[in-house]
Amino acid sequence: MTKLNKDPSLTHEQKLDRLGEVAVRVGLGLQPGQELVMTASIDALPLVRRITEHAYKAGASLVTTLFSDEEATLMRYRHAPDGSFDIASGWLFDGMASAFRNGAARLAIAGENPSLLAGQDPDKVSRANRARSAAYTPAMELIVGFDINWTIASFASPAWARAVFPNETEEVAVAKLWDAIFAASRVDLVDPIAAWGEHNKALHARTKLLNDKRYSALRFVGPGTDLTVGLADDHEWEGGASMAKNGIVCNPNIPSEEVFTTPHKSRVSGHVTSTKPLSYQGTLIEDISVRFEDGRIVEANARKGSDVLSKVLDTDEGSRRLGEVALVPDSSPISASGLLFYNTLYDENAACHIALGQAYTKCIRGGDKMTQDELAARGANKSVIHIDWMIGSRHIDIDGIGHDGNVEPIMRQGEWA
Amino acid sequence: MTKLNKDPSLTHEQKLDRLGEVAVRVGLGLQPGQELVMTASIDALPLVRRITEHAYKAGASLVTTLFSDEEATLMRYRHAPDGSFDIASGWLFDGMASAFRNGAARLAIAGENPSLLAGQDPDKVSRANRARSAAYTPAMELIVGFDINWTIASFASPAWARAVFPNETEEVAVAKLWDAIFAASRVDLVDPIAAWGEHNKALHARTKLLNDKRYSALRFVGPGTDLTVGLADDHEWEGGASMAKNGIVCNPNIPSEEVFTTPHKSRVSGHVTSTKPLSYQGTLIEDISVRFEDGRIVEANARKGSDVLSKVLDTDEGSRRLGEVALVPDSSPISASGLLFYNTLYDENAACHIALGQAYTKCIRGGDKMTQDELAARGANKSVIHIDWMIGSRHIDIDGIGHDGNVEPIMRQGEWA
Repeated sequence: MTKLNKDPSLTHEQKLDRLGEVAVRVGLGLQPGQELVMTASIDALPLVRRITEHAYKAGASLVTTLFSDEEATLMRYRHAPDGSFDIASGWLFDGMASAFRNGAARLAIAGENPSLLAGQDPDKVSRANRARSAAYTPAMELIVGFDINWTIASFASPAWARAVFPNETEEVAVAKLWDAIFAASRVDLVDPIAAWGEHNKALHARTKLLNDKRYSALRFVGPGTDLTVGLADDHEWEGGASMAKNGIVCNPNIPSEEVFTTPHKSRVSGHVTSTKPLSYQGTLIEDISVRFEDGRIVEANARKGSDVLSKVLDTDEGSRRLGEVALVPDSSPISASGLLFYNTLYDENAACHIALGQAYTKCIRGGDKMTQDELAARGANKSVIHIDWMIGSRHIDIDGIGHDGNVEPIMRQGEWA
Repeated sequence: MTKLNKDPSLTHEQKLDRLGEVAVRVGLGLQPGQELVMTASIDALPLVRRITEHAYKAGASLVTTLFSDEEATLMRYRHAPDGSFDIASGWLFDGMASAFRNGAARLAIAGENPSLLAGQDPDKVSRANRARSAAYTPAMELIVGFDINWTIASFASPAWARAVFPNETEEVAVAKLWDAIFAASRVDLVDPIAAWGEHNKALHARTKLLNDKRYSALRFVGPGTDLTVGLADDHEWEGGASMAKNGIVCNPNIPSEEVFTTPHKSRVSGHVTSTKPLSYQGTLIEDISVRFEDGRIVEANARKGSDVLSKVLDTDEGSRRLGEVALVPDSSPISASGLLFYNTLYDENAACHIALGQAYTKCIRGGDKMTQDELAARGANKSVIHIDWMIGSRHIDIDGIGHDGNVEPIMRQGEWA
């Protein structure tokens, strides 16, 4: 049995503990003396405790978890006065930003009910999302700008598990979702830390290859899709472990299978159809199809959740433009599971995707040291939102277009060409 | 059955819901459009949800609960590096202060394990307490200064219930503690809101009587105690419902049986012995005896927890002086339960007590509009701590000393004279 094989002797508790260890050591690269700010649902308490223990063992000076409760969110929609939906707890988000500026790392635990807010007034949902995005901006800028080391891990909440396995009892659904999380996070292997080392090497080889190519644009072609995504000038492909501006190497997503870069905000054209549902802040948005002109979405439709989508697109100047394009082969382990997760952390690592909104400055060469104007001049988009949605499948071909107009195959039928 | 009688038909869920309603309507007097910041242990989730719902029904714009987890606290003591104990999450406390300055109300749910940190290094405990107190100061000043409406309510955690009922099974202990909480909080009566109205009237009659007396000092005499507590110039007795500077009437403690005022920080002399254990931030401090000279504690002993006590006294310039003196008859309903709660919210409402540290500006006539220097000139103490400890019992007599030297009995054998 090599260290990259599955270890069938592991109990659930052991795998949960290893997920905590991987989140702290691989995900965050948490440093002795560093503070940690975690966000999690109340349901995630067992994983929060595993992470807290590993964080202190890694030398964390203080671990603070901000718990949320989906029941409280629903009570707000049921009973709060209308004005409630235009405000957010800015004092808390500002506090987080302040912690990050003072060196804290940031860990988010995902696992929310993908359709928590189904049935709520879309206008209230949109206004609450917009207020939250605006309030979160100072903290989010430090995260997407990689000023700090950060990661997202996930836990199997009952509501999420029921969405992924609708035909199972809750108990079986939760167990199956945990199995999928443990497998995707590589914590069911003999040596998860070594496995992540190997995986990061493979992702880095892929980003090097794409960076050497210096494509001018990518073209996605398939059913309902013919989209040309111009890449930002001096774009840089990223994937796997990455060094934050504070000098700490982190893996921002556990799991992660993608390589990604910054599109040019004004050079996207054509039409594209989503290949998986998008769960955004408790609303499922399905069968999105949009048309771009000069980088801007000029037509947008969705079979379900179109109200919320159209309001998301109106959030700000940058919310109709792209901030990320990412490539994931259809044979990625998460995609190979055949599951539809209704959770961005999982679905975005099972398919090529694009993101509306804010770009990662890290995906511009030298971007860490550039002003906002310099980043904008290279084509990096700016927005208070950053929402990934999936456009890849085994029916999609992708070409790379060189600055000389030369066209090369990058992916064929969802696999690296 | 009158509205002030017990209603034996109420279920646990109904009483819990009424506790939520009393906390919001009586405790906070929460106003439409007001934000609420709540702190609670994860264990308190059922009560947090009842409060959240009543807050939104009362028109709260947003309810944010900051949950704590005692397991996480213990992990810190077990694994964190030594430097951890000199820091606190100032970014979070500053955020709370910012919310209060912007109009948020504040609700704390008490119910912690009274001896959570028994067995931990007292040096680490003291340092962590000191760091927390310092970080909390900006928020605490807005609370003790009554800039905002606030309240403390409580829930029956298993650890607390085991401490109060050590000879019962956990299930029985929790049920008995809930009964005690429901009774003390008046939510087992036919009309709790009306009952609180009557209770507030009785407390206000008592404060009026004491305010009319304008005593210069109180003298406590009993076993191990002969203490003269000079009262601050222009001191004001408070008790029950009180108007905060934001114009909102709140009951800062649910339950509350005390009337209280501000001692003169330099005019306390004699010796005093505690009559109940004090649980402070997870440490039990028992059989405290101290001697005051010119308002300052010059000798202090405790049979248990003396390390933590002596470090508390060294927190800052004001931590050896008094910030509050409170009178509670020995026949108060909480005292009559015969229980020892190991929880300040309960034990302080079962016995006369004094508090080390910060004074309430509200307990100085016109204090709300005074500068720090003006408050200090009247004898109001200043400190980052405010720790109540119990000195009353049925063996204690209390006299009021007039400015003319006239001595009047206030309490005899623990009861109003």
